[in-house]
Order: sequence, then structure tokens, then C-alpha cells
Amino acid sequence: MRVRNKPWADKYIKDHEAYIVVDPQKWLGKWQSRFEKQQPLNVEVGTGKGRFIIEMAKAHPDVNYIGVELQKSVIATALRTFMDEPVPNLQFVLTDGANLDEIFLENEIKKIFLNFSDPWPKKRHAKRRLTSPGFLKTYQHVLDADGDIEFKTDNRGLFEYTLITMNNFPLKFDYVSLDLHHSPEAVDNIETEYEQKFSPKGPIYKLVAHFMA
Amino acid sequence: MRVRNKPWADKYIKDHEAYIVVDPQKWLGKWQSRFEKQQPLNVEVGTGKGRFIIEMAKAHPDVNYIGVELQKSVIATALRTFMDEPVPNLQFVLTDGANLDEIFLENEIKKIFLNFSDPWPKKRHAKRRLTSPGFLKTYQHVLDADGDIEFKTDNRGLFEYTLITMNNFPLKFDYVSLDLHHSPEAVDNIETEYEQKFSPKGPIYKLVAHFMA
Ligand SMILES: C[S@@+](CC[C@H](N)C(=O)[O-])C[C@H]1O[C@@H](n2cnc3c(N)ncnc32)[C@H](O)[C@@H]1O
Ligand SMILES: C[S@@+](CC[C@H](N)C(=O)[O-])C[C@H]1O[C@@H](n2cnc3c(N)ncnc32)[C@H](O)[C@@H]1O
Repeated sequence: MRVRNKPWADKYIKDHEAYIVVDPQKWLGKWQSRFEKQQPLNVEVGTGKGRFIIEMAKAHPDVNYIGVELQKSVIATALRTFMDEPVPNLQFVLTDGANLDEIFLENEIKKIFLNFSDPWPKKRHAKRRLTSPGFLKTYQHVLDADGDIEFKTDNRGLFEYTLITMNNFPLKFDYVSLDLHHSPEAVDNIETEYEQKFSPKGPIYKLVAHFMA
Repeated sequence: MRVRNKPWADKYIKDHEAYIVVDPQKWLGKWQSRFEKQQPLNVEVGTGKGRFIIEMAKAHPDVNYIGVELQKSVIATALRTFMDEPVPNLQFVLTDGANLDEIFLENEIKKIFLNFSDPWPKKRHAKRRLTSPGFLKTYQHVLDADGDIEFKTDNRGLFEYTLITMNNFPLKFDYVSLDLHHSPEAVDNIETEYEQKFSPKGPIYKLVAHFMA
């Protein structure tokens, strides 16, 4: 997702520092202090415009959420949506998901969400995929021993790739749907922006998996 | 697939004993003697009316094939099709796939094919699915260390189940397609009867996986 730089983004982010972090390395070991309550921490990487993580935070007040996004103008848009009705259990972080192991402690995260990650279809860009072995290693470092990864996409190539990388890593699969919107689990599903846009065009795939001790 | 018992089947099988085995336990350790050449052995479990295994045998004269099928009248139909144009590298075996480890030696098989296996959608019948853990254990026993399993189906529930059982066993995934007929690999694909019938109605799924040492 490429969007034009939005001139208002810098100022908007600065004005809402209570809800967004642009210098995440400084918060290593201190994330819980940014929330009202100390409770399990779930992180979405590639949050985009934030629909999913905002709805999750509202639906689960007993969990703390962090939405990580690489693009400033995109996360500023998420933040603006969030500010319509802020909740105390969601924070945004402007950074590359590749940095997760520099900003979180070992075992600090209970769940990682990856939703409609950029597919990077060319083989020479495979390392940029958020489910490539390099990223999986980073997630393994910060995920709790009981933690898991929840991945959704409409992109067939990326899902096929991810089934293989996660299996080979190895991660253990707990749940697979090859058509989430026509599965019993659809009732509890919170849709992302991309999901709303692409689910009418074909199946949404979902995989839940965990690392082994 | 339930078919009426065909009265001609018994006689037809008896008349073609050179190509079909009904007492497979007797052939333990002697399968290669039934073929013209000693060469790698590939086995399909649930061969049905035989289109796939017959075409495979014709396409790959350097491999020996065995089609295993549980239903007498079904395998007799396969045999009859085969007899139109017999080749020396295919044999049929009337038995339950659950018996594989009683009729083959350890490491004797190079590849196992499972095509459009009965889905047994009810949870209480899960053990009958040809990709349930019990069957996987049997395949592991008879598959060569470099061997693999190739599984195709149009049944979403069975494919989701199989991704989980094979991952959890664990097997290592080598190839996954969530729409084989729209994949580059479609060119080499030999279609089964069920595949011909069901591929116009939705995606064909394929998984190739191997056991780890
Ligand atoms: C295709 S969009 C999907 C957005 C949202 N998850 C959804 O489902 O609607 C992918 C998002 O991931 C972000 N992204 C890509 N690579 C990233 C990375 N390495 N770290 C953090 N965010 C990343 C992109 O900037 C983009 O906003
Ligand atoms: C749905 S049909 C598919 C036939 C063929 N493979 C195709 O793709 O057209 C499944 C076949 O597997 C056979 N089968 C089911 N369970 C079996 C078992 N345990 N051992 C051997 N064959 C079995 C059934 O009798 C049936 O002929």
C-alpha cells in the first residue's frame, strides 16, 4: 500500500503522543506503563488504517493491543480514526516489524496478528514478506511460549508461501481456513479494511500457528 | 463412492490375475517380481476407476505403480479400463490402505498418492480419512526416507484437516497449491475421474509433503 505523504501527519502524531510512539526503542521493557491496566499484550504488524486493531481493542478490554505500521501517513490515518472514540488498551507504533525483537522483551507478546500483508510476489523480494523465515525468527523471539500467530490474507500466493514457511520453520498449525467467510468462525471475525474490500472477490484464508518449545 | 456390486467383477478379476492381486499379504517382499523391470515403486491409495494411475504408468515407464482400492467392483472397473491398453509397470491391489504396512516392507515405496479421498465429514469418522494420523503412521512405515506423499482434493474441509494433521505429525511441506488448475504446475497434472468432474466447480487443492528422518 503506497499512499502520498500527508503533511498533516507529523503534527497530528505529535499532538497525540499519548497514543502513538515514534521512538519505540526507548520503550523497551516499559510498554505496559503506556496502558491503563497491566494485561496480555497482542501486536498487529502492518496495521494499515487500523480498523482491525481498533475493533479488537474495543471488543477485548482485557487485552492490551499495539498496532505496528511502517508508513507514517497510514498510521496517522489509523490514529485519527481511533481518536474518534479512543480506548485505553490500544497504542500505535511507527516502525518496521523487522525491529520487533529490539523493542519487545523475550516472551512479552501473547499474540501476533498479520493481516493482508503485502504479498511481494517477486521471488527476489521474498525476504520482505512478513511471513518469511527471517520475520518468523523475530516473532519467535518476542512471542510467549503459549503465544501464537494469526494470519489472514486474500492473496493465494502469499498464503501458499506461508503454509510452507511456517510448516518448515517449524510452527505447529492450530487452525486453517481456506474460506474464512464461509466457516463457522466467521461469526467472531473482525474484518480489516483490505478484507472488506477483497472478500467479495474470492476466499479469505486464515492460519493460526504456534512455535514449539 | 458407493457402487452396486457387479456380478462380472469376480470372474473378471480371476481372469486377469497377472495384473491384479486380491491376496496382497502373500506378496510381501515380492512385489518387484510382478513387474517387468525392477524400478522405484509408487502407490496410489483409493485408486477408484484408475484414470490417474493408468495415465501415470503410461507417462512414466521408468516407475512401477500399484493402485490400491477397497471396493471390488470399483477396482474391477479400473482393471477393465487398463486392459484396453495394458502396460507392464502397473498392478492393482484389492485391499484397505490401512493394511499397507502388512503388505509392503519398510522404505519400499517412493511415493504415495492420495487423490480425492473420501472426506468423511463427520468428526466421529475422522479416523477413516486417509490423511488421519493413523494412516500417516502407516505411510511413514512403508515410505522411503526420500519418499513423499502427494495429495489432491477438491474438498475444502478435508484439505484444511490434512494441512493440520500433516503439519502436526509432523511432515514437512514441499509444495502447496490452493488452485492447482490455475498454477504453473497444471501443465504436468494428470487428472483423476473426480478431478475431471469437480474441477469446473471450484479449486483443486494439492499438497506434497515428506516425513522427517
Ligand atoms: C496491504 S496493507 C494491509 C493493511 C491492513 N492490515 C488491512 O488488512 O487492511 C499492508 C500494510 O502493511 C504495512 N507494512 C508492510 N511491511 C511492513 C513492515 N515490515 N512493518 C510494518 N508494517 C509493514 C504497509 O505499510 C501497509 O500499510
Ligand atoms: C472419492 S473416490 C476417488 C477415486 C479416485 N482417486 C479419483 O480421484 O477419482 C475414493 C476412493 O477411495 C476408496 N477408498 C476409501 N477408503 C479406502 C481405503 N481405506 N483403502 C483403499 N481405498 C479406499 C473408495 O472405495 C473410492 O473408490
